Amino acid sequence: MTDPRYTPLALSLPATVPFVGPETQERLRGAPFVARLGANESVFGPSPHAIQAMRAAAGEIWMYGDPENHDLRRTLAHHHGVGVENIVVGEGIDGLLGYLVRLLIGPGDAVVTSDGAYPTFNYHVAGFWGALHKVPYRNDHEDPAALFAKAAEVGAKLVYLANPDNPMGSWHSGADIMAAMEALPAGCLLVLDEAYVECAPEGTAALVAADDPRIIRMRTFSKVYGMAGARVGYAIAAPGLILAFNKVRNHFGMNRAAQAGALAAQRDADWLAQIQAQITEARERIGQIARDNGLEPLPSATNFVAIDCGRDGEFAKAVLDALVAQGIFVRMPFAAPQNRCIRVSCGTASDLQAFAAALPKALAGAASILA
Amino acid sequence: MTDPRYTPLALSLPATVPFVGPETQERLRGAPFVARLGANESVFGPSPHAIQAMRAAAGEIWMYGDPENHDLRRTLAHHHGVGVENIVVGEGIDGLLGYLVRLLIGPGDAVVTSDGAYPTFNYHVAGFWGALHKVPYRNDHEDPAALFAKAAEVGAKLVYLANPDNPMGSWHSGADIMAAMEALPAGCLLVLDEAYVECAPEGTAALVAADDPRIIRMRTFSKVYGMAGARVGYAIAAPGLILAFNKVRNHFGMNRAAQAGALAAQRDADWLAQIQAQITEARERIGQIARDNGLEPLPSATNFVAIDCGRDGEFAKAVLDALVAQGIFVRMPFAAPQNRCIRVSCGTASDLQAFAAALPKALAGAASILA
Repeated sequence: MTDPRYTPLALSLPATVPFVGPETQERLRGAPFVARLGANESVFGPSPHAIQAMRAAAGEIWMYGDPENHDLRRTLAHHHGVGVENIVVGEGIDGLLGYLVRLLIGPGDAVVTSDGAYPTFNYHVAGFWGALHKVPYRNDHEDPAALFAKAAEVGAKLVYLANPDNPMGSWHSGADIMAAMEALPAGCLLVLDEAYVECAPEGTAALVAADDPRIIRMRTFSKVYGMAGARVGYAIAAPGLILAFNKVRNHFGMNRAAQAGALAAQRDADWLAQIQAQITEARERIGQIARDNGLEPLPSATNFVAIDCGRDGEFAKAVLDALVAQGIFVRMPFAAPQNRCIRVSCGTASDLQAFAAALPKALAGAASILA
Repeated sequence: MTDPRYTPLALSLPATVPFVGPETQERLRGAPFVARLGANESVFGPSPHAIQAMRAAAGEIWMYGDPENHDLRRTLAHHHGVGVENIVVGEGIDGLLGYLVRLLIGPGDAVVTSDGAYPTFNYHVAGFWGALHKVPYRNDHEDPAALFAKAAEVGAKLVYLANPDNPMGSWHSGADIMAAMEALPAGCLLVLDEAYVECAPEGTAALVAADDPRIIRMRTFSKVYGMAGARVGYAIAAPGLILAFNKVRNHFGMNRAAQAGALAAQRDADWLAQIQAQITEARERIGQIARDNGLEPLPSATNFVAIDCGRDGEFAKAVLDALVAQGIFVRMPFAAPQNRCIRVSCGTASDLQAFAAALPKALAGAASILA
């Protein structure tokens, strides 16, 4: 009896995971985390209306969700001042990025991203045998000019840019990004990941014509809306590109309760404003904790703060390990020089108190190991 | 400004949907359906424990689900007497079929299925440019011997067989399928879709060695477990194949509440038994309604019944349209000669009463149109 005959592409891929989940780490350490501050989830939770909608939908979960996501798309379209034909809803931005890469990228096709940007995007590019080109961050910011110049140089079909950025929390104005796009080569699509844009200053979101074929914007209910576990993301783009998702997407892939929850969450502007305020407060608190320990917090337009640990990646990794050992789940950038930082998600007062208590010991421990 | 540069494969695909959802039909007709009997959902709903688990999880939906699906896989492995390494959980069988096809099928690779079997599988095969070969049903049953002979003839990498079958409701014993697999050519993987097997007589599920590399079995919480809207499916196969899913799957794609709900549903054996009894009763009632109208119900090992309308596909389609016009959502087989039937899912007493009331008018209407 012989094994299945995988494609050459599948044989070439490692069976790796872009991120190890906190539950896996908890099982390994044999204890739950004290503070869950590593995945940029929103500990403040979703709108009570969203919770209520999901609970109400539990009883009707025997029905498949609407494969057209009609009601949610209509509400989102109205919110963004675009048409329903400009919106596709999918299983989180991760799912939508997978579909997008599949639509555009075949073996050897050039793709550009920043060195240290979102690993799950890279995972999808590798998964379709794309040729990934990376440009460095510039002063801890993604560098649109360099990204688009590289795209021109290598003939890229797709370029990835997160604004605000993950893992550094830095940002550009939407106007600057639209201006930089003048240099985007013809036929190259910009995927602008705005997962964190609701945490950012006014003017950070790109203002894009609904029929602009050069750009697709990604949004999510996983961050500020506090629904990471629901898996609801969406993209805004020209109708032709939106329609193309119907060629490859899992049409019945959306959870029915998640559809209802996202709809309720989108309509609760008061909750959004309240969470934005809590995020601002938590960012300041994280910054203060960093400074209290002689570390430098980076400015952030997201629901997390990158903290410069003042030395190299090895040191930051030792700090991170020592935090994890104390039950504080945090993560850190993958690539140098950003990996001199640890990345701490906004938490409740109690979460951040636990972080504040653990950090001095983590720093001392790391310093003693790497003296 | 130019359009994105799609892959040749993407350009070749139609932006079609394997199934039009009932919500789309309701929007088109401007009224909700009276009875939702077209998607083989379980109107009886999920276990109250599953509902409770999903409601409880709504408050913690701010957390991503465990990307390893650890607890659910462990419970499923125990239930099936296999190891955790034999189980992969995904976004419904639809999602898992997509991953499986992606792992095995590239341009021109041969795949075999039955003519009129699950369209979403065909959608995935087309989506990776596989060459789909079809064999006819035999007496309204999928024909394992013909499927495997065709697989040998065309050098197929993958063959699809649903047992029990959708849309006909027919079935083979698991022992007969395992015996037929002697003729499965080396290096050809059988995907055995057992979505409905919990509705089938004892002995219908295939008994497979956990390390048998020739077969992957698909199961779901969408049918008897009444959680179609949750999107939880799983597959059972040899560890190497299960591991390969980690190369391509959306690791954080599972809804956290759905994970919790499926775990609770799996553990509620009493509810399962109760639903199995309700399904048996509803099948008998559908059969009686058919016979009362001079039609022949086909034997079913699923949660639906195919009703032979006694004439051709055009007539059955007219009956179906007339039912839909009266607010009865049903579907029908796509391919001849199975399309002489309509397919009616098990419903509540009230659902089936509505169906019973609408059917005579639908038959009379169809007969008058096609006299």
